[in-house]
Amino acid sequence: MITSMANSKVKRLAALAQKAKMRREEQCFVVEGIRMFREAPADWIREVYVSESFLQKHRRELPDSQPYEILSDVVFQKASDTQTPQGVLCVLSVPHYELSERLEAWCTDTERAPLLMLLEDLQDPGNVGTILRAGEGAGVDGVILTRQTADILNPKVIRATMGSIYRVPFFIVDFLTDTIDLLKEKGMTVYAAHLDDSVAYDVPDYTRPTAFLIGNEGNGLRRETAARASQYIKIPMAGQVESLNAAMASAILMYEAARQRRMHTNI
Amino acid sequence: MITSMANSKVKRLAALAQKAKMRREEQCFVVEGIRMFREAPADWIREVYVSESFLQKHRRELPDSQPYEILSDVVFQKASDTQTPQGVLCVLSVPHYELSERLEAWCTDTERAPLLMLLEDLQDPGNVGTILRAGEGAGVDGVILTRQTADILNPKVIRATMGSIYRVPFFIVDFLTDTIDLLKEKGMTVYAAHLDDSVAYDVPDYTRPTAFLIGNEGNGLRRETAARASQYIKIPMAGQVESLNAAMASAILMYEAARQRRMHTNI
Repeated sequence: MITSMANSKVKRLAALAQKAKMRREEQCFVVEGIRMFREAPADWIREVYVSESFLQKHRRELPDSQPYEILSDVVFQKASDTQTPQGVLCVLSVPHYELSERLEAWCTDTERAPLLMLLEDLQDPGNVGTILRAGEGAGVDGVILTRQTADILNPKVIRATMGSIYRVPFFIVDFLTDTIDLLKEKGMTVYAAHLDDSVAYDVPDYTRPTAFLIGNEGNGLRRETAARASQYIKIPMAGQVESLNAAMASAILMYEAARQRRMHTNI
Repeated sequence: MITSMANSKVKRLAALAQKAKMRREEQCFVVEGIRMFREAPADWIREVYVSESFLQKHRRELPDSQPYEILSDVVFQKASDTQTPQGVLCVLSVPHYELSERLEAWCTDTERAPLLMLLEDLQDPGNVGTILRAGEGAGVDGVILTRQTADILNPKVIRATMGSIYRVPFFIVDFLTDTIDLLKEKGMTVYAAHLDDSVAYDVPDYTRPTAFLIGNEGNGLRRETAARASQYIKIPMAGQVESLNAAMASAILMYEAARQRRMHTNI
């Protein structure tokens, strides 16, 4: 059992939770809590750490084949990113999804049209995580994020995904402009939200291959990104509200697409 | 100019931001920032405080008729609830809306059917504030909250409303059961979200008088509350997502109502 705060593994866990650069270099990230541990794909798991009291209560949760390291409760608290840790923490490999490969598969699927979210420079980790979670619920096939977006492997994002990080493929790109061109080339329509001179969001047909562009919370989409969009859409606002939170806007768009697709299937 | 941290007004401002009991007893609350100051209804304003440097830069923002008190920047920081205060802070009277009166007006309006949100014991101030903001955008007429819900006058809620607190009437009740009975009596249909054995949320007709019930983030609706609902509805979920964040679910429901109402008007 590790009982020293100064232990190099403990320090490394805390650093992995805090430093995006380190996660990128080591191509791994940390998840916490029993649910995140249970749902983790087996081939992503590199290391498992449990607290002493977690082990006493939940030894059954740990498969015999799963090696793990025990930390004293005090040390676990230090390694953990949360105030009241559940006592289990894993280091996982970052999954690698190939956008071009996936696109090929999605766009040649005659049964189902792809639905993608494109996030440009979102800053709030809670927004990014929530969009992944709601995206899974709405049947989104993948999320493409710019490098300037809050790191998807940040513990706050991971927590907000509530496990969707395991199931929704994500792709990180430098800029969305080339990606948009690629998607359009593959026959997708790319809709830019929150712009003037645009049609109401419920007018277009989202049963066809669809991508939604969501811009930064404060500044919206970059001009050059918005310029590449196939169509501008807006969520009509009553009262004096100018715009919605990025996550709320995403939910409304994704579920409008899901609604149309459900209606379409029922016909 | 107030330059002492120990000044009783400074202490009172900090206490008002932190203590729901004090806000309730004094029937006032604190808003911060230039936008919240600008949009505040004149007859709600009781006191205005500005920082020294705010005054230097924004004296024009302050109408001649508006008395205000100046705090040194250091003292302002102490009175403020934010990390980087904008330098203006107001104490406002709590508005009083009469539910029965409003209901009478809404339910006899032949032009427009009322749309209400009923929030039961939501704990996250961000969720409550965001629901108010998106609610204004969706054309919600009022929000009814249980006393166990995060205090709507909490600075975090106020901030998340981005001014909608001034424009969306809110009503605080002990329990929702009687309220639901009252709404039904007045001809409203009360939909309970997130329950099994329910129809997809986009099936009912929300162009008629409509109220949506949203439950606590962890536990959902109380059984006795859900039992009073006119109808159960669910947001269909793909993947392994069990439920959405309360604010996301609210956004989807409110905007589905707004969408139907827009379509209806266009016919």
